[in-house]
Amino acid sequence: MNKEHGEKLNEVREYMLDLEHLNQAIGLVYWDMRVGIPKKAIDSRSEVIGYLSGESYKIATSDKVKEFIDYFEGVNGLDDISSSMIENLKKEYEKTKKIPSDRHKEYTILASKSEVAWEEAKDKSDFEIFKPYLQKVVDFKDEFISYWGYDKNKYDTLLDFYEPSITVEKLDDIFGELRDGIVQLLEKINNSKVKPKDDFFKKEFSKESQEEFSKFVVEKLGYDFDAGRIDESVHPFTINFGNKDVRITTKYLTNEFRSALFSTIHEGGHAIYEQDIPDELNGTGLGTGVSMGIHESQSRFYENIIGRSKSFWKYFYPEAKKRFPQFEGVSLEEFYKGLNTVEPSLIRTEADELTYSLHVIIRYEIEKALINGKIKVEDLPRVWNEKYKEYLGVEASCDAEGVLQDMHWSDGSFGYFPSYALGNIYGAQFLNKMKKDMPNMYEEIEKGNFEYIHKWLSENIHKHGAVYKPADLIKMVTGEELTAKYFIEYLNKKYTEIYDL
Amino acid sequence: MNKEHGEKLNEVREYMLDLEHLNQAIGLVYWDMRVGIPKKAIDSRSEVIGYLSGESYKIATSDKVKEFIDYFEGVNGLDDISSSMIENLKKEYEKTKKIPSDRHKEYTILASKSEVAWEEAKDKSDFEIFKPYLQKVVDFKDEFISYWGYDKNKYDTLLDFYEPSITVEKLDDIFGELRDGIVQLLEKINNSKVKPKDDFFKKEFSKESQEEFSKFVVEKLGYDFDAGRIDESVHPFTINFGNKDVRITTKYLTNEFRSALFSTIHEGGHAIYEQDIPDELNGTGLGTGVSMGIHESQSRFYENIIGRSKSFWKYFYPEAKKRFPQFEGVSLEEFYKGLNTVEPSLIRTEADELTYSLHVIIRYEIEKALINGKIKVEDLPRVWNEKYKEYLGVEASCDAEGVLQDMHWSDGSFGYFPSYALGNIYGAQFLNKMKKDMPNMYEEIEKGNFEYIHKWLSENIHKHGAVYKPADLIKMVTGEELTAKYFIEYLNKKYTEIYDL
Repeated sequence: MNKEHGEKLNEVREYMLDLEHLNQAIGLVYWDMRVGIPKKAIDSRSEVIGYLSGESYKIATSDKVKEFIDYFEGVNGLDDISSSMIENLKKEYEKTKKIPSDRHKEYTILASKSEVAWEEAKDKSDFEIFKPYLQKVVDFKDEFISYWGYDKNKYDTLLDFYEPSITVEKLDDIFGELRDGIVQLLEKINNSKVKPKDDFFKKEFSKESQEEFSKFVVEKLGYDFDAGRIDESVHPFTINFGNKDVRITTKYLTNEFRSALFSTIHEGGHAIYEQDIPDELNGTGLGTGVSMGIHESQSRFYENIIGRSKSFWKYFYPEAKKRFPQFEGVSLEEFYKGLNTVEPSLIRTEADELTYSLHVIIRYEIEKALINGKIKVEDLPRVWNEKYKEYLGVEASCDAEGVLQDMHWSDGSFGYFPSYALGNIYGAQFLNKMKKDMPNMYEEIEKGNFEYIHKWLSENIHKHGAVYKPADLIKMVTGEELTAKYFIEYLNKKYTEIYDL
Repeated sequence: MNKEHGEKLNEVREYMLDLEHLNQAIGLVYWDMRVGIPKKAIDSRSEVIGYLSGESYKIATSDKVKEFIDYFEGVNGLDDISSSMIENLKKEYEKTKKIPSDRHKEYTILASKSEVAWEEAKDKSDFEIFKPYLQKVVDFKDEFISYWGYDKNKYDTLLDFYEPSITVEKLDDIFGELRDGIVQLLEKINNSKVKPKDDFFKKEFSKESQEEFSKFVVEKLGYDFDAGRIDESVHPFTINFGNKDVRITTKYLTNEFRSALFSTIHEGGHAIYEQDIPDELNGTGLGTGVSMGIHESQSRFYENIIGRSKSFWKYFYPEAKKRFPQFEGVSLEEFYKGLNTVEPSLIRTEADELTYSLHVIIRYEIEKALINGKIKVEDLPRVWNEKYKEYLGVEASCDAEGVLQDMHWSDGSFGYFPSYALGNIYGAQFLNKMKKDMPNMYEEIEKGNFEYIHKWLSENIHKHGAVYKPADLIKMVTGEELTAKYFIEYLNKKYTEIYDL
């Protein structure tokens, strides 16, 4: 690479660093709004976020960025990080610039009103309240797709925001296979005589004892409290301001043992990913998880594949019993099975490991049809209920339990849902490779040596940040294209054992 | 006022609002750094603050601001708020612009290094470590004063940053009178046979019980928890992001009852001031306390004049006894006197209400001499110790207990210290007027009706924000120029009664 290119790359990184600084401040203001802000300040703080976001937008779409992009047009021989940085810069710039700024502004206002309408509609369990807003959001998305363009399927353009390189064509295959696999397994489980108990999780557990135990567990898993902290919020989330400050939130239910613990482990998985991003990616725009799907693979890997495994509890259960006399008389086997009961249900966020993906696949199928005009906004409640009946055998008694349960559509996040199920699929495919690389991994988990798997994840996935596309990463790491087969195998093995199928 | 002026004023306010938004974000990042940041993030977060501060500087010194100033040059007939806004804008712009930007930058870097050197020097109690840095800071201040200019005394220019309209000429009078008054009173107290006990404050008090009681007290005084919150930090402080989010921090000592309580009441006084600022001052640059001295008058009024009064404890002591069995057998009279023991000491921040101002006056005399070249940096430890001996009759055994105890000089905040004693003086002068307006004010306090005095402070002081200069405000409110006489009277009356003089 010639010297001039090197200098220009440094200039780009300096410029991007400013943007990262600003975005970190926005992130902190956002975190504070969800964790600690006094209630009278909410409106004025929204204006602060509005102002800062506007500045961030200006920096990301400035003439300077255009100049950088033009400079590197046709330049070859850059290292992986630099070429990915430039490519990413260009992609973001073009996506943003293609939307006329007045339409973008109108959409932002609509999205915020639509969120409020959704909240009211959910509270009153009345889809009609939300319908006109959702219609406008869908119309906007259609208009935006016309600016962005698409190849085979309009929905591909939206998927690309969350999972670059994933398409409807691929997802139809992968999700189709997964759906059939889960539905078959579910049928067997429904016919099984084994009905694990989980009533011992529904006793009283003080907030303090849950908090201490959750912190003890995530620290063991590799979460670094010198580069993060745990607070409470209404909805648990992970947020990071660089790789040195990755914060988790959780919510404690004093009548349920599993809720806060597994949500903390889940968010811990996201957080460990971000904490592991190397410093050298600062100022490249690539110093973060590569996609929503890969991010969910890390959170769900820690939450389910590790956190709901027997090996994990062989190590942690004695500690849990010491701290929680509520488990007196409950054997490890009973405890483990209690954590893995399967029960088709209406609410995605409360679903078990097996049925969770079906909730997601239903949303995928609906979004795809909606964006391509195969169904209309007014059809949503009906289609929703039909699919829940067909795949899960359950019926919502009202819209709040059905089509209104998630907020994702209210601000137009179509294309996001598939990430959740992709996370499961990626995770099991990674697991398959891990077991080959470390045949003794479960034995190490039983000994409490979580550094062993953490190091593997860090070396194979985390250290790359967003340098490689998800499709390239899975190939690099596992040697294969993405496939649902390992996740289906994993589920079959796990539940066959638990339910004696 | 003509229409065109009105439109321009709106334009100025829009512009200033952006600056306020940015500064609120900076404030929040700063707060987080002192309250909750994980330690590995400190360095990178400093860069975020550096970036945002640079942007804030750009906005405050832009050509746009110059255009506003030029537009309103010679324009008359503006309302008080608008004319003060323009005057303030001009003053800030000119002060900043007069410093060559490379010198400003060098100074910022020096100040940050100097702070680190001061910390080390204080830890090792070795002034020699700090001396070369302090010398450079003083040299810079001298250079800056040459840019800013001065009338009669170089130190006036520095005072103006913290207490506009106060000068050395005035301070020499006021502080001279106060110093003599306190020294005389102190001599009488030293000769008094009364020695109130305060050992009952030095028992074990749990953090939780102190926290609950402190919150109970400041809420009663008028602090609004819907527009603020209390957290812990190494050094207590108040910070606000607008008038809807005014946060306090405190520090709990479990072997001392008074420390956290009175620091919370003190910060509560600052915070109530900021919470009372009217919304109409948003976007004017005047929506905050007018000066450091007036700010300290509010915090020290609540902490001392109210918080250490007998009426206050007539109301709160029964509640305190309920919560703290440690006060079993201690009468209200003993409790009250224990809160008001006088004991000349070495450390300003731990000084009692009487001797506190002497600590401040010593610093004022030293700063004034230093800035005017009457003493040199190398003389500081000697001069410091001489003055402590003379005014307070105490001798520091090392520099850490003496000249190195405060951080204010390390970043060049010369001119700040007088605010602390000015706060006492303003406060007593306000009190004198309050007693005329509300002869029953202490009876209302005994009944727990703190809204009564809060309303007076709000109507007379808080609601004006920074619209009027401190000298104008004190005249408007009390009808008199600033004078130490009321504070001296207040002290004499209080301690004569307590020490039976």
